[in-house]
Amino acid sequence: MILEVAMLKVHAGQERAFEEAMAKAAPVIAGSRGYLGHELRQCVETSGRYLLLVQWETLEAHTVGFRQSPAFNQWREIIGGFFTEAPVVEHYQGVLKWPEKSS
Amino acid sequence: MILEVAMLKVHAGQERAFEEAMAKAAPVIAGSRGYLGHELRQCVETSGRYLLLVQWETLEAHTVGFRQSPAFNQWREIIGGFFTEAPVVEHYQGVLKWPEKSS
Repeated sequence: MILEVAMLKVHAGQERAFEEAMAKAAPVIAGSRGYLGHELRQCVETSGRYLLLVQWETLEAHTVGFRQSPAFNQWREIIGGFFTEAPVVEHYQGVLKWPEKSS
Repeated sequence: MILEVAMLKVHAGQERAFEEAMAKAAPVIAGSRGYLGHELRQCVETSGRYLLLVQWETLEAHTVGFRQSPAFNQWREIIGGFFTEAPVVEHYQGVLKWPEKSS
């Protein structure tokens, strides 16, 4: 599993509208091939700062499969207007998980 | 659940040793009250860049419970020498999780 990590900065006062837009946009990304799940989290220390974590089967499921699909335009149309600057997006592969068994 | 997000930059050539140290350090943090689990991930795009994600019951479980415990000194002793700069640490609270049920 590859984790997409996107750092998002949202215009002041638009946090609630952004969160509602993200809820609306969720099925758009969730329908993409190789998508496993995602979550949106809000920074405790910095207002308007969010972290988007998306689990993908492979790197290409995101960078090619999703980003080059019509769904990506739809996704960007719903949420693209909220950001004060372009999101910083990186991908992370697993090294260590603890506890080792989740049972 | 509060997610601690730490961005780590490790000296070139020390990645393997750092990962081994993190495996050794895992039980140290895992024994802390309010700790729920953690994972270490390596950046696909940037060599030596890691993401540490730690799940805590509350913010204070990390900032007070762990950081002010003897275990924190032990933790830092094991992994503190690998970083090229001080880790950037933030905390994130949940806003949206998808799929909505994990069953």
